[in-house]
Amino acid sequence: MSVTVVGSIAFDAVRTPHGARERMLGGAAVHFSLAASFFDEVRVVGPVGDDFGDEEYAVMRDRGVITDDVEHVAGGKTFFWSGVYGENMNSRETLETDLNVFETFEPKLSQASREADVLFLANILPELQLNVRRQCERARFVALDSMDLWINIARPALVAAISEVDCVILNDSEVELFTGEREVVAGARTIMEHGPSSMVVKLGKYGAALVTADDSFWVPAFPVDFVTDPTGAGDTFAGGFVGAIAAHDGEITPDVLRLAMAYGTAIASYNVEEFGTERVARLTGEEIVERVEELRRITAFEPAPVALR
Amino acid sequence: MSVTVVGSIAFDAVRTPHGARERMLGGAAVHFSLAASFFDEVRVVGPVGDDFGDEEYAVMRDRGVITDDVEHVAGGKTFFWSGVYGENMNSRETLETDLNVFETFEPKLSQASREADVLFLANILPELQLNVRRQCERARFVALDSMDLWINIARPALVAAISEVDCVILNDSEVELFTGEREVVAGARTIMEHGPSSMVVKLGKYGAALVTADDSFWVPAFPVDFVTDPTGAGDTFAGGFVGAIAAHDGEITPDVLRLAMAYGTAIASYNVEEFGTERVARLTGEEIVERVEELRRITAFEPAPVALR
Repeated sequence: MSVTVVGSIAFDAVRTPHGARERMLGGAAVHFSLAASFFDEVRVVGPVGDDFGDEEYAVMRDRGVITDDVEHVAGGKTFFWSGVYGENMNSRETLETDLNVFETFEPKLSQASREADVLFLANILPELQLNVRRQCERARFVALDSMDLWINIARPALVAAISEVDCVILNDSEVELFTGEREVVAGARTIMEHGPSSMVVKLGKYGAALVTADDSFWVPAFPVDFVTDPTGAGDTFAGGFVGAIAAHDGEITPDVLRLAMAYGTAIASYNVEEFGTERVARLTGEEIVERVEELRRITAFEPAPVALR
Repeated sequence: MSVTVVGSIAFDAVRTPHGARERMLGGAAVHFSLAASFFDEVRVVGPVGDDFGDEEYAVMRDRGVITDDVEHVAGGKTFFWSGVYGENMNSRETLETDLNVFETFEPKLSQASREADVLFLANILPELQLNVRRQCERARFVALDSMDLWINIARPALVAAISEVDCVILNDSEVELFTGEREVVAGARTIMEHGPSSMVVKLGKYGAALVTADDSFWVPAFPVDFVTDPTGAGDTFAGGFVGAIAAHDGEITPDVLRLAMAYGTAIASYNVEEFGTERVARLTGEEIVERVEELRRITAFEPAPVALR
């Protein structure tokens, strides 16, 4: 059994109120695969250029991530993004986006990647997501991420891709943009009319919600002492969430999805404590379990009889 | 045993994307007392003018709220506020604030109000909050609400008031304004250095957090189908929270505070479904219990062994 992820591999430059990095490993597929690597064998499909070297491969391989399907485009440069976070960390401004080899990326999946048990379609062109999804016929769980750009300029293609996956992961502003619904549950159900049986709505620093046909589940962000860099938190969450589902052999019940939300939340909370992949690259399973248990403790309350008037 | 609340009694005019009211009963003390009335005897201390009549008193009295300490200022007009909510309901613009009789309000507590078991100091001038707090010597639990205005122009007086209460209730932007801390727990603990043993940080549509000396607890907003008017949600939450604490005879343990957070959340969720006090005025205990139980269901997850790599 294994997980395949298709998406961006990047170098990021970020400045936050707590520091800066000129060039750090990033990209949705990288953050996702590091988080998912705690649960299952992970194969990464994405393009890199000549500037992508052993040091970067090592970050993934040291966590057991299989990079055979990382496509090296000779003469090309790796996707580059730079941005600045505002004082409250909730807003960020993109300074530069150089798609480079990502611009003409056409995912090429090896036989092993196509045989994935679980598939994550990170945020890329919806047509490519659908194409990859159809190549992975055996996948028993497929999740898809997207962004405002595709909602705005490629809605029909996005709807087509969504209609063939099990779970859509978006943030709350994207759900509202997509559906016009302000309420999380109503917006998620509108998107689920296209086919998915569940949806995760990310609420940024406030946590995330899981919506299924007749239920919802809410988890706060794990309260860390200090947020250094939120870059990649959403994809790290997705990696923990999808990974925990992949680690579960049997039927994907609401309980399995809920616990997976907790794993995603726990790993994402480590991600934001340092820049880029720095913290998750040296994370341990014990540390993850610790925060999952703590998350349960800080959200639980016991009903007790209260006489109401 | 009883709860005393000191604060504003008002007429509100609001416009939201879903409708408008030209003149509805409002004010922090009113919203608080309706919610708290489900748990204990509640006494309201606040000023009204000649325009405040039987119809308004009836809303409170029908819920058993004791209005003996509502001060009728002859020749005066009741506090009036009008505002408009933006499309996403998260921002609101104040159009008009006529303090009227509230401008020269000096709380006068009857013997019965001074003997309160539990006291809530709604958002008024910090000097008045401290004055009232000192009159209620027997109160075993005192909570205080405030706002950005007092943090900006009356910080020393606010700190003095905070130093003599058990629990401070603010929203996250107010905590950041007060302390410069972006993280909820760190900000709350900074405020608690002045004396309070607990703090509630309201997160608007995302829920609320309870912070104690060595613990935190997080509860999402209850997911309603439709938000009609958020006015008074924070004070309704406070009424349910403080009321549930008042209903508990014994020691105020973390478990008591957590369950109280759930009650506050449940009642506040009804408040936003209709304008002003309209929904809570006809709420039943059964409906409250239903949402407290549902809230527990939609936040619980079961740990299960996951083999981590």
